Amino acid sequence: MPVPCTQNGSPRAGTTIQRMSSVYVPPLQEHNFVLNQVAGLEEISKLNGYQHADPATVATILEEAGRFFAEVMAPLNRSGDEEGSSLDEEGQVHTPEGFRAAYEKLVESGWPAAHLPADSGGGGLPYMVGVVVQEMFKTANMSFSLAGMLTQGAVEAVRAHGSDQLQEQYLEKLITGEWTGTMNLTEPEAGSDLGALRTRAVRHDDGTYRIFGTKIFITWGDHDLTDNIIHMVLARTENAPPGTSGITMFLVPKFILDEQGNPGERNDYKIVSIEHKLGIHASPTCVVSFGDGGEGAVGYLVGDEMAGMRNMFTMMNAARIGVGMEGLALSERAYQHALAHARERVQGRPVGSAASDSVAIVEHPDVRRMLMTMRANTEAMRALLYVAAASGDRMFHSESEDEREFESKRLALLTPIVKAWMTDLGVEMTSLGIQVHGGMGYVEETGAAQYFRDARIAPIYEGTNGIQAMDLVLRKLPVDDGKVVESLITEMTDVLAEMNDHQDLAAFGDELTAAIQGLADTSAWIGGRLAAGEIDDALAAATPYLTQFGTVLGGWLMAVSAVEAKRQPADYSAGFLEDKVNTARFYGEHLLPRANGLVPTIKAGNVLLAAADL
Amino acid sequence: MPVPCTQNGSPRAGTTIQRMSSVYVPPLQEHNFVLNQVAGLEEISKLNGYQHADPATVATILEEAGRFFAEVMAPLNRSGDEEGSSLDEEGQVHTPEGFRAAYEKLVESGWPAAHLPADSGGGGLPYMVGVVVQEMFKTANMSFSLAGMLTQGAVEAVRAHGSDQLQEQYLEKLITGEWTGTMNLTEPEAGSDLGALRTRAVRHDDGTYRIFGTKIFITWGDHDLTDNIIHMVLARTENAPPGTSGITMFLVPKFILDEQGNPGERNDYKIVSIEHKLGIHASPTCVVSFGDGGEGAVGYLVGDEMAGMRNMFTMMNAARIGVGMEGLALSERAYQHALAHARERVQGRPVGSAASDSVAIVEHPDVRRMLMTMRANTEAMRALLYVAAASGDRMFHSESEDEREFESKRLALLTPIVKAWMTDLGVEMTSLGIQVHGGMGYVEETGAAQYFRDARIAPIYEGTNGIQAMDLVLRKLPVDDGKVVESLITEMTDVLAEMNDHQDLAAFGDELTAAIQGLADTSAWIGGRLAAGEIDDALAAATPYLTQFGTVLGGWLMAVSAVEAKRQPADYSAGFLEDKVNTARFYGEHLLPRANGLVPTIKAGNVLLAAADL
Repeated sequence: MPVPCTQNGSPRAGTTIQRMSSVYVPPLQEHNFVLNQVAGLEEISKLNGYQHADPATVATILEEAGRFFAEVMAPLNRSGDEEGSSLDEEGQVHTPEGFRAAYEKLVESGWPAAHLPADSGGGGLPYMVGVVVQEMFKTANMSFSLAGMLTQGAVEAVRAHGSDQLQEQYLEKLITGEWTGTMNLTEPEAGSDLGALRTRAVRHDDGTYRIFGTKIFITWGDHDLTDNIIHMVLARTENAPPGTSGITMFLVPKFILDEQGNPGERNDYKIVSIEHKLGIHASPTCVVSFGDGGEGAVGYLVGDEMAGMRNMFTMMNAARIGVGMEGLALSERAYQHALAHARERVQGRPVGSAASDSVAIVEHPDVRRMLMTMRANTEAMRALLYVAAASGDRMFHSESEDEREFESKRLALLTPIVKAWMTDLGVEMTSLGIQVHGGMGYVEETGAAQYFRDARIAPIYEGTNGIQAMDLVLRKLPVDDGKVVESLITEMTDVLAEMNDHQDLAAFGDELTAAIQGLADTSAWIGGRLAAGEIDDALAAATPYLTQFGTVLGGWLMAVSAVEAKRQPADYSAGFLEDKVNTARFYGEHLLPRANGLVPTIKAGNVLLAAADL
Repeated sequence: MPVPCTQNGSPRAGTTIQRMSSVYVPPLQEHNFVLNQVAGLEEISKLNGYQHADPATVATILEEAGRFFAEVMAPLNRSGDEEGSSLDEEGQVHTPEGFRAAYEKLVESGWPAAHLPADSGGGGLPYMVGVVVQEMFKTANMSFSLAGMLTQGAVEAVRAHGSDQLQEQYLEKLITGEWTGTMNLTEPEAGSDLGALRTRAVRHDDGTYRIFGTKIFITWGDHDLTDNIIHMVLARTENAPPGTSGITMFLVPKFILDEQGNPGERNDYKIVSIEHKLGIHASPTCVVSFGDGGEGAVGYLVGDEMAGMRNMFTMMNAARIGVGMEGLALSERAYQHALAHARERVQGRPVGSAASDSVAIVEHPDVRRMLMTMRANTEAMRALLYVAAASGDRMFHSESEDEREFESKRLALLTPIVKAWMTDLGVEMTSLGIQVHGGMGYVEETGAAQYFRDARIAPIYEGTNGIQAMDLVLRKLPVDDGKVVESLITEMTDVLAEMNDHQDLAAFGDELTAAIQGLADTSAWIGGRLAAGEIDDALAAATPYLTQFGTVLGGWLMAVSAVEAKRQPADYSAGFLEDKVNTARFYGEHLLPRANGLVPTIKAGNVLLAAADL
């Protein structure tokens, strides 16, 4: 049975509104359109290793994935929030009702490993398809999806840096999801500044280590879904230098494997508490204390000593893109929820008509403005995400080394923007979702407030958005003397000529031209400040510059979407394509102009910030 | 003992950071500066009836008020959120621990009636001073303050429209706070559209009425703080026409007064449930069912039959300004909290310095950007609020009838902007407050998340911000053919000449000039669309126009603040005045430029919204 999905990729409300409101309907046409018409799935599917991922096959796969997440994961989103995960007196975390059964289905389904190589037990699909699957999981149930996302990080760490023995012992079970993984980075005094971490690792005669210390904010640090949990822990070996260069990565299983490779003795760490958070209540956020038993938790070296920070970075791009995706996912879910409500709720009437002519609030221009703002931003985010993911596929699978290097730098540039721009928008869009509901939006049972609460973590974790903005201006903008940014800006202008061919895209074309010029202007200005050694000016400008960059990228990709929709590609309904052009124009004419409103802010630099008495 | 308050009006963190974080320190210099230097308290104090409210007296009064709210109300903010109000099986609401004792102190203090005429038992202070007192209450404890705000509405209704008998029976006790009042407007099918309400009022032989129906979202609809609660209920009399013209206002006491005027028999209504909300947990939001006992709840006519809607409007301005104030209040509280954290939290170091040189995060430019954004917006909101309140005083107390009319129209214009611009900013600023805290901001115990949750109701209630924007473009902009807006825009340009005298205000002056031009442009454009009968274009533009208007008003008043601070008025520390100029410039150079980024959005009109398939 296919997932119910209407022609335009949006859920249709009817008499079943109450059910619809909490339902997640994967917008399949939209996924396919962005993959194929904007992000170039067909080309990606011709890369070495991806030949079985032709667009038709991918469409079928996504239909199945959408059905799975809509049917198995989405129904647990609200109940999971209400019940939350809890910690018992023995230090065991319990997940909400229904999570364990759903997790078993997830493992059976194979979705978490969809994009891993077939020879590792994965589905062998392109990363960009894996990204859509992840997006669906997050849209259906963000809290639950985090268990999978962290496991993914552990898989990457062990694959890239683990010894043959660690790979043999752990990799398959992490890939299938039979065991989950976690990332243990943060400590009370080491948040954004990982170099300050104090957790100690003492080398044992047999080559293993013993870990002592306290880690905080450990997502899915414990639970009752699997019979083992594999922690990737950053710690400092004896005599290691201070700062990030003295950090080493260790694998610390909850249950130490016996000689048959099965979970045996309980390792020496305990879950001290779980946080009472604003949102993602079903996702247990743990304080973990290693080595309290006295002997230390048994840990195995992953990669070289002192290489922990470098090894972390290999996981960072994927994790940051995974978090950026949460901004998109919650915006999509909030949009579906708000649209269903707006179609159902009858209140007020058009100005000038009689009191008896009450209409659904979706007819009111200001409500339409909110819904279109949510929809246009959501579609722009999705386009950026898939385009970034395509760079991820090309950087590993292109035949040309130059192209691989080019795409690697492109992805590195886009990553902080995906992470920060999309998660900031996630908070804004879920806030609009509440507003569409009026007073009911403030009542928890409605469900709109949950998206807003859940969305608020994404600008914080996996590197705060301020850290992302610093990364953008200090590490990404200067690469190759600014040429990586320049080539992207040049590429953006390619679409302008074709926009000129369509009269209804002329106004959008003008806005895009101005916005791209504005971005070139600020990029050059920041580059100039860096060259002059005025780092603080670049840092003061970083966040508004990142917002500008994301907004302009969104404008570019919505322009590409409009132009592609005008070509009337097969496989999409006429209504879908018409809507795509209209939504793209809305982005271009209503939202994109704000980007240039940030130019003066950016160029104001650090003077007044430095002078402030704070 | 004076309230601890530093020179620059901000709290200073030291070793007592944990305590400081949850402490509210009234920024007294700031209150006094805005009252005197921006909003013209001295002139107001010369108006008939206010002569005792000279600036020095007001400063002393505010110091006392600040101490009261900081000491009595602020400590209950976090605990009130955690415990929340609850409903027992008998239908009685219980407030959190400590609320009853604090309420008794509030009644003793006389603060709620500070700005009511002395002959009504009030303090006889100007409205603008009463506004500062209200702001302090809301900053200290928003949930608790709502009980007072709604009572205020009841006082105004009974004073303006109640019969002599009702005034005699109820007014004094409502003014002192011995009894509280509520507003019963919303019904399940009548939210923004009050005309749809169905609650019935049946006239009895003795001239009283019997009320039947269900009201929802009744703030402080029940509690255990006082021995009577006075509900102002909108209902429809028999044979009343549909829509808003058929609505009548009634006074419905919880306990019907006996012949001595004391609470007697319990009236026929019950509290069916209280809402489980995103925030303001201490404020009970009730579903009230009238007349379930069969006889109907006894209600007394307030004003004429069918005049209920008009009578409501007399309370509307004050109530909307009271809600707008919540955006300011929570931004101030979130700023104090975030600043204290940023001074305490050591993490990271300036780019290029050694790993051992860790600094407090308040030293990082991006953290300073967040804090200054909060501070500048907070100061701009406060200036707008007090200036609007000054119009409120002049519209009643000016000797010239022309001036009274002018100020009445000015206040009517500013009211939707105060309500909507400030409450939208409240959500954004409290979100930044979380972000400054990093991961700790997402943990409820930190307290930053509460401001964010509490702030989210303010754009919704007392007329959603979408309704405010409609009010601005449809009812306020067209008044006197647009002259009310024009005269305000002209007045804004007055400050530009003096800005030119100060070299360091030149850039701000340029931005303000451009921003004012932008506002004149969009005002004329919307006026043109209305004149052409293209109402939907005006409605589509309404929200971004309101945002632009608020942002420009903020720029104007921060410019006035800067110019006034440059005059070095006595009574303020040099540091405070220097900071005021710097913060004003930050607003002008970093935040104000965004206003013109909205111009294309506004002028894009309704075309794409109308075409959207929603």
